[in-house]
Formats: sequence, structure tokens, C-alpha cells
Amino acid sequence: MRTFNPVFAAPQGSPIRELFKYLSVPGMISLAGGYPASDLFDEAGLAEAMAIAFRNPVACLQYSSSEGLPGLRDALAHLSRQRGIPCEADSLIVTSGSQQGLDLLVRVLLSPGDIVLVEEPTYPATLQALRLAQARIETVSSDQDGIDPAKLDIQLASYTQQQRPTLLYVSPTFANPTGLTLGLERRRALLEVAARHDLLIVEDDPYGDLRFTGAAIPTLAELARMQPETQDCVVYLSSLSKIVAPGVRIGWMIGPADVLKRCTIAKQTADLCTSGWMQAIAEAYLAQGFLERHLPVLTKAYRAKCQALVGGLQAQLGQRFECQMPAGGLFVWGRWSDGLDAKAVLEKAIEHKVLYVPGSAFYAKAPDCSAVRLSFAAPSLEGIGHAVERLAAAVRTFGYP
Amino acid sequence: MRTFNPVFAAPQGSPIRELFKYLSVPGMISLAGGYPASDLFDEAGLAEAMAIAFRNPVACLQYSSSEGLPGLRDALAHLSRQRGIPCEADSLIVTSGSQQGLDLLVRVLLSPGDIVLVEEPTYPATLQALRLAQARIETVSSDQDGIDPAKLDIQLASYTQQQRPTLLYVSPTFANPTGLTLGLERRRALLEVAARHDLLIVEDDPYGDLRFTGAAIPTLAELARMQPETQDCVVYLSSLSKIVAPGVRIGWMIGPADVLKRCTIAKQTADLCTSGWMQAIAEAYLAQGFLERHLPVLTKAYRAKCQALVGGLQAQLGQRFECQMPAGGLFVWGRWSDGLDAKAVLEKAIEHKVLYVPGSAFYAKAPDCSAVRLSFAAPSLEGIGHAVERLAAAVRTFGYP
Repeated sequence: MRTFNPVFAAPQGSPIRELFKYLSVPGMISLAGGYPASDLFDEAGLAEAMAIAFRNPVACLQYSSSEGLPGLRDALAHLSRQRGIPCEADSLIVTSGSQQGLDLLVRVLLSPGDIVLVEEPTYPATLQALRLAQARIETVSSDQDGIDPAKLDIQLASYTQQQRPTLLYVSPTFANPTGLTLGLERRRALLEVAARHDLLIVEDDPYGDLRFTGAAIPTLAELARMQPETQDCVVYLSSLSKIVAPGVRIGWMIGPADVLKRCTIAKQTADLCTSGWMQAIAEAYLAQGFLERHLPVLTKAYRAKCQALVGGLQAQLGQRFECQMPAGGLFVWGRWSDGLDAKAVLEKAIEHKVLYVPGSAFYAKAPDCSAVRLSFAAPSLEGIGHAVERLAAAVRTFGYP
Repeated sequence: MRTFNPVFAAPQGSPIRELFKYLSVPGMISLAGGYPASDLFDEAGLAEAMAIAFRNPVACLQYSSSEGLPGLRDALAHLSRQRGIPCEADSLIVTSGSQQGLDLLVRVLLSPGDIVLVEEPTYPATLQALRLAQARIETVSSDQDGIDPAKLDIQLASYTQQQRPTLLYVSPTFANPTGLTLGLERRRALLEVAARHDLLIVEDDPYGDLRFTGAAIPTLAELARMQPETQDCVVYLSSLSKIVAPGVRIGWMIGPADVLKRCTIAKQTADLCTSGWMQAIAEAYLAQGFLERHLPVLTKAYRAKCQALVGGLQAQLGQRFECQMPAGGLFVWGRWSDGLDAKAVLEKAIEHKVLYVPGSAFYAKAPDCSAVRLSFAAPSLEGIGHAVERLAAAVRTFGYP
């Protein structure tokens, strides 16, 4: 009999991956995945970046340093400054996607039994990483405007010094799954509370550049650096997966030197270094200005898809489905009215050849069983139209007119 | 005050990386790193593979499955069968280098305090991964022919059922650092012992294709699959880093289904998936037969470099340095005679502009302070000649004629 680490004795697969088997059903339209649209990849720009990168084949092919190629770190620091975050190349490290960034933080910061705070609902891969690290996951109070700093303050005051939370994981801009964006005042208040209670905030920001409406709100990482007390409160994670392509597997982490140093050592153990070849391609892509040129294309396309989905849902489902238009990102969060069970509706939806993710996958504690996450990113506008019709047909089987 | 996981409270950098700072000294010749030779990369073949892979840009750019792209898994299964290991695509998973393979196994199999057996000396990144996992590292008896199965049998019999080792890590072919290859009889005996004691063997095989002399010896993974009792005894790790290029960051793991399944879940947390782009390039490179054509080029060049190093050492240092010609791989292991301290000689060697790794970096327990690891891979033949002269000059400062 083989003995596994107890957390791997009877491992749970991802509930979202469970839905993958339906993707191969002919005619299925998926609103389930968080995949960016394949037909929006900047193939021409990436092909050119690939050619430019390979002009220095040894940089592509040899081991990179664990921190990342200097040129890519420069380019990512530049991109981060464009987002408003004061940042130099040596205040960030390159990671193999932002998933690895979170994983390195978990390894370095957490011991089994440590308390980690998350919003509810939140990103399931974060919950999985925390569970495998045997963290004690606790939720923080939030409302329709996101996390509530005043309630967090009270919650943090209730812990003993020995048992206070190690970190708070938050995705304040176009969150997965809710699409919510935390306002400026709450961001400032959140940082103040964190500084007062010596709480480290992990800000996950993969979607921030995909804004459809309104003006950009400064990231927590930017705001934190405006005050000496909050300076070291935030570790910022981001990724090229949603704005360039997931296949490059390039993310980055901006954080205090003591955290970055340890994450670099953890990365030596995790994978030695991120592919130098992918780093060189990403560097060329950013340095050529392709991302700046491509972002408006992406944003315009996703905005149209988002409007089609939310508009269609409102027109065809009306009161039966409650949802709001997000200001950016890839996701619409909603709920079936009258306590209709999202898994039950999904069964019917699959019969009608449309997929979504039941919201329960996103809860650490008490799930809202009527909640639903819909992604408008991958299907075409026409596909989104059909998807809405099919959802309407599925929910009619529950006796709705 | 920030609290880290205790293993990261005062983290140790890699002792090999400590030497990196000397690499920028003008004129320095390094026998220290384990980097393959940059001028032996198959740039033309890889450029062609890159072009072929990008004919299907979506496969490159979209998320891959955590197990790896089907086409690459096929190609790696084919390569593994060429090495003698019965293997289909679904009996392996793709990893981000074989370092990740080890990391996934450590996560899945080990709990803090678990006993892990290693040869002494062994690969330092393995020791680091085990230490960070809070494993109890114990060494197994080995001699000039490698690990001794009879002594391992006695050692294994000495553990209680509650405290028996979880796994044995071994690199039986052209090991790093010793260059040693375990003979066929010992391999068979080792598997028998492992099966009898229900011990899982992790066989790390990054160098096996780089054979200079003699006939190939079946891997432990191949031998294990010949008998029902040893069928599930071995997890096999390999990598394209030394035979294609480290920058592709492609490794693979062949193992029992229960282990692979859990490692796949651990990989979701670690980095979601390996870069689909790199996977597609690796697939094209293998499928085009480039590796088969390039391996003889590599082997010939490394054989000549190895002969130049060992021949030069014997001619110029004679009795002062004891070493043997390895049958393959990238490393020569040796020791200064008369108990001369390898770190003291290294200080003088650095003054003479030549670098090596003191052997103490490779020991879990009691280091041999005279031992030295030399890599012939990166420098040119001419550079190796100079390196030997400089080592001779360095050791003369200790009063040798």
C-alpha cells in the first residue's frame, strides 16, 4: 500500500474541470471556462515576437535565472508602472503564470493550520492551493461593493496575537467569479486596516487591463506604496495569460524584498526557472509595443460580448436571473431567482447544449446554491445569443413562462 | 514582523549558485555549472520546430491540459520506448522540467518527518527540495559501483513498519555528481529489495542518452516492468534539458496511475499547466526526428570534452587528483589527494581563473572535504586545456611539485 501525504489521500479534482467532458459534445456552447478567446490572440504580433526572440537563441535555450530574464523583468516593471505601480526590475520576479506566484507565496508564508482570509465567493484554484497547504480558510465579510474594510477591522481585532491570519487573498478588480471591482475609498480603508493589523494582502490582478467602462482605479499595490505604513502590505500578482496568451505561462510578482527572496528559493525547488524561450518571446512582445496596440482590440471585443450576454439575459430571462454588468474582466456572476438550484438548471442546460459553472464551486464555506458564473470570453457573439436562448429554454423546464 | 513558514525563516541559497558571481570575472573558465554547452544547441532544428509548432497557433497559445498536450505525450512515450521502457501516452505526464517532477512527487508523497533515502553524494537540488518538505533525509550505502542493494536490504529491515522510508531517490545512469552508472545485476537486485520492502524508487534520468562508451544498461523503469512484483516500484523522471535545451523546460514523469493522478492535481496548484507553446515546439522537434539526428553530435562532442578533461588531469596532476572517466553524462567526480581541502584549493583556483564545485555541496550527511565536481560540458576543448593547467597551478601553491 502506497502512503500519500494525507491531503492527497483522496484528492478532489477541480469542479470546473469536471465539466470539461461536455465540451466535446457536438454543438455545445460553453460559458463555463475562464479561457480567453482563441480567435482574439494576437497571432501576428506573437509570431513577430517569436522571430525577434530567436535572434538570440542562447538566451532562449539556456537556463534562465530563477528571478527571470533581466530584459523581461524590465518590460514587466515598465508595464507595472504603466498601471501606476512604482516598480523596478529587481522589485519583481517572473513566475510560470500567476498560479505559480500564489503557489510560491503559499509555500513560503504558510504553515499547516495558519489562517488565511478570502472573499466569498473566490477563485477555486486559490481555495485548492490553500487546502493542499492545510491552511485554515476563513472568509471576510463583503457586500455588493466587495470586501467591507470596517467589518474586516472588527474581525481582525477578534483574533489573538498567536492566531492571527497570515494573509488575505483578494482580487479587487473584475474579480473571478463576481466581476466586482472594489472602489477607491474601500481600497484605501482596506490598506489602513491591513497595516494596523500587520496583515499581508495578496492582490491578484490578472484582468485589470480589460476595462470596458469607467476610469481605472489604482491597484492596492499602487496605493500601498503611497504611505510608509502600508508600503510592505501588498504582494501583487499578475499574468499575461488573459491579455497576451495563457500558453506563454508568464506571470509576475511584485513584493517586499524579504518575500521575493524566499519565493525565488522556493522557485528553484519548484521548477528552477521559467522557460527562457517564453520569457524572451514575452519580452519582445512587450518591448515592441504589441500589447499596447492589442489591448484596445481585446477590450472592445470583450465589451461587446459582455453586453451581448448581459443584455440577452435581461431581455430573455428578465426577473428569473439576477445579474449585473461588470466593468471589465471575463465573467458575469448571477443567480437564479426563487432559490432555483444552479446544479439542477445546469443539468437541463447541458441537455440544451449550453454550459456554465454552478456558483457553489467558488465558496469556501456556505455556498449560494442558486449562484452561477458565466464567461462571455470564448464564444462568439452569435454563440452568446444562442447560449442565452438555450438558458431560457432550460429554465422554462422548471415551470417558468 | 512577517512570519514565514519555518523552513523559509532563514533560507539557504544553493551553494552552487554562490559561485555564479565569479562567472563574470573576465577570463574565468567554469567547470562548475551543470549547464549544457550553448554552442551545441541544435538551433536550426529548434527554429524549424518552432515554425512547425506555430502552424497551429491556438494549440501553442491556449491553456494546455495539466497532463500535457496529447501530441507531446505521444512523442515522449515514443522516446521512452526507444529507451526500452514500455510506455503509452497516458502513462506519463509532462512537467516543467524534471525538477518539477521531483517537486510534485515530494508534495504528493511526503509528510514532514517522513524518511527519504538518498545516495551520498547526490544532486543538491534534490536535497534542497527534501529539506524544504521537512523530510528526514537518510543515506544509503554505496561504493565505487554505486548503491549497494545488499546493504540497503539490511538497512530497510532495520526500520519499524511505522517508520519505514517513503522513497529512495536515485540517479543510476551517469549520476550527478559522481558520473557513476549502476550495473545491471545491482539494478535487478535493487528492484527486488525495493519490492520486498514496498519502497518506491524515484529514478532520475536526465543524462542517460549521453553515453560515450559501452552498451546501454536498461533503466530501472524498464527492468521494473518485467516482473509483476516490481511493476509499480519505480517512478521515472526525465528531461529534455540536457539533450535538447534547458530553455524549453520540458520534463516528464512515468509512474503508477495513482501517483500520476495525484501529481496532476498537484500540478494544477503548482502552475496549472506547462507552456503549450513550448510543448508544441518540443513535440515538433521530437516528431521530426531532430533529436535522433542531433544526439550523436552531442555525444561525440561531450565525449571529446570528457576525454580532454580526464586525460589532462591525469597528465598534469597525476596522483594529486584521483578521478575516473565516466561512461557518459556531464560530470567528472574526483578528489584531491592527501586530504587537501577542496574549498581551500578552490580559493586558489579562482585566483587562477578556474571554477569548480567543492564536493561538500552534494552530501546530506558527512561530506568528503577533498571531493570535487567538474563539468566538462560548457567550456571549449581549448578552455578545458587551460582549465587543467590552471588547476595544476592552483594546487602547486599548496607545495606540490
